[in-house]
Amino acid sequence: MTNPYAIGLAKNDANYQSLTPLSFLERSAKVYPAHTAIIHGQQRFTYAGFYARSRKLASALASHGIGKGDTVSVMLANTPPMLECHYGVPMTGAVLNTLNTRLDAAILAFTLDHAETKVLIVDREFSALMKEALSMTKQSKPIVIDYDDPEFAQDGQMIGEAEYEAFIAGGDPDYAWKKPDDEWAAISLNYTSGTTGNPKGVVYHHRGAYLLGQGNVLTGSMQKHSVYLWTLPMFHCNGWCFPWTMSVIGGTHVCLRQVRTKPIWDALADHKVTHLCGAPIVMSTILGAPEEDKRELDHTVQFFTAAAPPPEATLAAMADAGFNVTHLYGLTESYGPAVVNDWNAAWDELPSAERAAKKARQGVPYVALDDLTVMNPETMQPVEANGEQMGEVMMRGNIIMKGYLKNEKASVEAFAGGWFHTGDLGVLHADGYIQLKDRSKDIIISGGENISSIEVEDTLYKHPAVAAVAVVAKPDDKWGETPCAFIELKAGKDATPEDIIEYCRANMARYKVPRHVVFTELPKTSTGKIQKFKLRDMAKDV
Amino acid sequence: MTNPYAIGLAKNDANYQSLTPLSFLERSAKVYPAHTAIIHGQQRFTYAGFYARSRKLASALASHGIGKGDTVSVMLANTPPMLECHYGVPMTGAVLNTLNTRLDAAILAFTLDHAETKVLIVDREFSALMKEALSMTKQSKPIVIDYDDPEFAQDGQMIGEAEYEAFIAGGDPDYAWKKPDDEWAAISLNYTSGTTGNPKGVVYHHRGAYLLGQGNVLTGSMQKHSVYLWTLPMFHCNGWCFPWTMSVIGGTHVCLRQVRTKPIWDALADHKVTHLCGAPIVMSTILGAPEEDKRELDHTVQFFTAAAPPPEATLAAMADAGFNVTHLYGLTESYGPAVVNDWNAAWDELPSAERAAKKARQGVPYVALDDLTVMNPETMQPVEANGEQMGEVMMRGNIIMKGYLKNEKASVEAFAGGWFHTGDLGVLHADGYIQLKDRSKDIIISGGENISSIEVEDTLYKHPAVAAVAVVAKPDDKWGETPCAFIELKAGKDATPEDIIEYCRANMARYKVPRHVVFTELPKTSTGKIQKFKLRDMAKDV
Repeated sequence: MTNPYAIGLAKNDANYQSLTPLSFLERSAKVYPAHTAIIHGQQRFTYAGFYARSRKLASALASHGIGKGDTVSVMLANTPPMLECHYGVPMTGAVLNTLNTRLDAAILAFTLDHAETKVLIVDREFSALMKEALSMTKQSKPIVIDYDDPEFAQDGQMIGEAEYEAFIAGGDPDYAWKKPDDEWAAISLNYTSGTTGNPKGVVYHHRGAYLLGQGNVLTGSMQKHSVYLWTLPMFHCNGWCFPWTMSVIGGTHVCLRQVRTKPIWDALADHKVTHLCGAPIVMSTILGAPEEDKRELDHTVQFFTAAAPPPEATLAAMADAGFNVTHLYGLTESYGPAVVNDWNAAWDELPSAERAAKKARQGVPYVALDDLTVMNPETMQPVEANGEQMGEVMMRGNIIMKGYLKNEKASVEAFAGGWFHTGDLGVLHADGYIQLKDRSKDIIISGGENISSIEVEDTLYKHPAVAAVAVVAKPDDKWGETPCAFIELKAGKDATPEDIIEYCRANMARYKVPRHVVFTELPKTSTGKIQKFKLRDMAKDV
Repeated sequence: MTNPYAIGLAKNDANYQSLTPLSFLERSAKVYPAHTAIIHGQQRFTYAGFYARSRKLASALASHGIGKGDTVSVMLANTPPMLECHYGVPMTGAVLNTLNTRLDAAILAFTLDHAETKVLIVDREFSALMKEALSMTKQSKPIVIDYDDPEFAQDGQMIGEAEYEAFIAGGDPDYAWKKPDDEWAAISLNYTSGTTGNPKGVVYHHRGAYLLGQGNVLTGSMQKHSVYLWTLPMFHCNGWCFPWTMSVIGGTHVCLRQVRTKPIWDALADHKVTHLCGAPIVMSTILGAPEEDKRELDHTVQFFTAAAPPPEATLAAMADAGFNVTHLYGLTESYGPAVVNDWNAAWDELPSAERAAKKARQGVPYVALDDLTVMNPETMQPVEANGEQMGEVMMRGNIIMKGYLKNEKASVEAFAGGWFHTGDLGVLHADGYIQLKDRSKDIIISGGENISSIEVEDTLYKHPAVAAVAVVAKPDDKWGETPCAFIELKAGKDATPEDIIEYCRANMARYKVPRHVVFTELPKTSTGKIQKFKLRDMAKDV
């Protein structure tokens, strides 16, 4: 029996084209040419302008020999050039590498060398730091371009060969970029801020960026011409792909150099912002604004948050302030968000504690993620869907990275058994929603028993004097490890270590109770995550 | 220089999966298991039920040997089994062929033979017709399954081996279907109702169905849990991919056997329908309903229409009745809609005539269509973007068919030069929007001048006595062809051929004025399109 569908129905230019998010901007420039694409201080760029500037950038880069296989690194705040780089760089076939602006010179130098950076674009604010980093590189001697942002008032030297505006001025606004021959081609490179060893370079491809670019619209039910405020750093997983997402719907980007209360509230009200993203700390910033900075909003704002599930009190305060919060989860390796706490309207009717339990779960895959489960990483068998048996969270689908650049060993490990191993420990609930319990490396193994540091922290957060808490393993001769709690107390509240331990004994299994309690300010990363590796060091000396 | 991105970053099961719309249903069944997926009369199916029934169908088909390369043909109204077939058939690797329920036995027999149909599912309403068709097939001797719809009250014999419910009852609700190895695999087969010669079998693939499935959500700004009313026949381009679209957002399908006013208005009000599609005739049906059938709507309904641009008067009446109309354009070869009159809010401010001119344009590509233009088909050069120079509308992208089944000659012609040749004539406006002027075969060539039949019709539609009009070519010894107008007069209105010709002389160039005018009822297809080929035959004898 022959298969009639196997004959004479091949791909050709008319019916097959590479998926790439670059086509989103091309379309919006055609369909909404006069619509405002970017707001930055007093600057405004239309979609026609955004597209023309991106093509000029691509043309200027290409005329400097940049193309397929090259890396362009950028050290930029959330500014128009950062958005233009998300299009202009891959238009040449090159790969965009956004640098974390809070890293130190040594790691930045390592990154430039590892990425084999050919061109480096630097905002004036970071020029001193990058000059130091450049003095430390072993191989990379990139062409350096300065960006002199009119919104950056302070001093800052120019360290490059040209200023960004002058550099793109010579470019062709009609530059004839081409889609990649293969949608699997690399589009960007994001280094993970590893807590040990050297950072790993996570490589994204055009196909995944296209699918998650659309995926944010689908998951967020985003309407045409939505307005997005840049509180999330774009250097973080390419801003969860929102630089591409907004072009799907001809939306407006509102740039923001720094997460400060007054500019945020002003943007929300003046530009009628509909969506923004950020770590939970951004919610605290918004809610904690001085009353005179807060503005009346005449519309509901959608806030996407990741990392820890938002506490009920924060959600209630956000709702009062005019925000609807959606809880996402993902990793650098999954292009940012890949999992969503997809809210079931029926849960609105649950008692508060049950509703909070539902909210605490990370959830289900984005439409663009094919599969998500929790497995025993040794046997690669799913755990029981009972909300209790712990395993490693595993993902697969088209929004998982190509792999780690020049680190095949790490890639092979991450993809063992045909699943991406997140390194996060979690459980699977009966309804298919997952819930995180810990990072693999954050689990505490005491006397052979696994203790979820998150579980101990959740209990401690309910103590009336506790403002913030992190629990880590302290090496112990007898038990292997024991839990050690680091706590920030609320202003005006007081507690002794004995009070805390007593409270834990009353509220958790004996073996989970911290043996040591330390009151201190918790060290945090630039994106507001608590740095447990520092606390683990401190715990050794407690 | 080596390209570091070319090494060690290959595809694997963790980071690459075939795009298929089947995954949408799998996800909705997991995330919204209890949400109503299908309403059909008194029947309700949840997403868990919809998915389980589709898998049972797949399992039952597979146990009858159906798999990759096989065709399953269905002769069904807009009913739950029709939706289930959109998932259950491709789950086995087979291809779904939906038959136009208004065709005659001879064409249906040709189709079954050409498609090499292995299984045929038939609604009782069409069993006599299909029995006749089956008696006329040369090769195809399919397994026949009857569908005994409780919503079909009339008689209708059973002609198959089993009834649908009994057939799937033996299937496995946990049937382990697999994604296609290659997303380029065929998913469905739609025969075009060719006006001459045999119908051509248009083959869709999983990749395109996935992309247009999402594309409808993006273009329509459709929200989670939208409610869709089935006024468009699902046999028509797989219902413009909406059987797959609704699973992207966990929406509800409201089935409808027939386009009748009372059930439509009841569904709109009772089920809070948010979206529906149809030819302009569906708008007439809705607006022309007896007042006692109309219902008060507490929400705006989105209506997607294709074919002719909606007249201003209809749009205004629809707006008054609570509908927002979006004008789409596409062909069977483009999975249904591929082009949208993407409305620019600034156009709301234009004077009425200019607004109508904007509304009359077909528009710009869907996000999922890569490119759309108007070209001289001989030179394959784009026409000038001046709204006047006519050429053939050309498309390319991932939502263009694989090709015509077992008709490589037609496929090669359709894809000549790396573009899909639509056969429609149009112009390109300065802002990149296209506007149709005619089908290639509908253009009238008189004395060497091209006359757009649409243009003459547009003028005639403004005559106060004209209800509907079609203008076709009448062979002429002197001029080659001359325009001949067929007109339906409005009830209670009167006009003579001389009145009409006089009106034309006053409103168009002399050479475009019809030489003959005939008052008659216009022949229409099952989807409401006027059958010009019949009128051309009639014109010969005028």
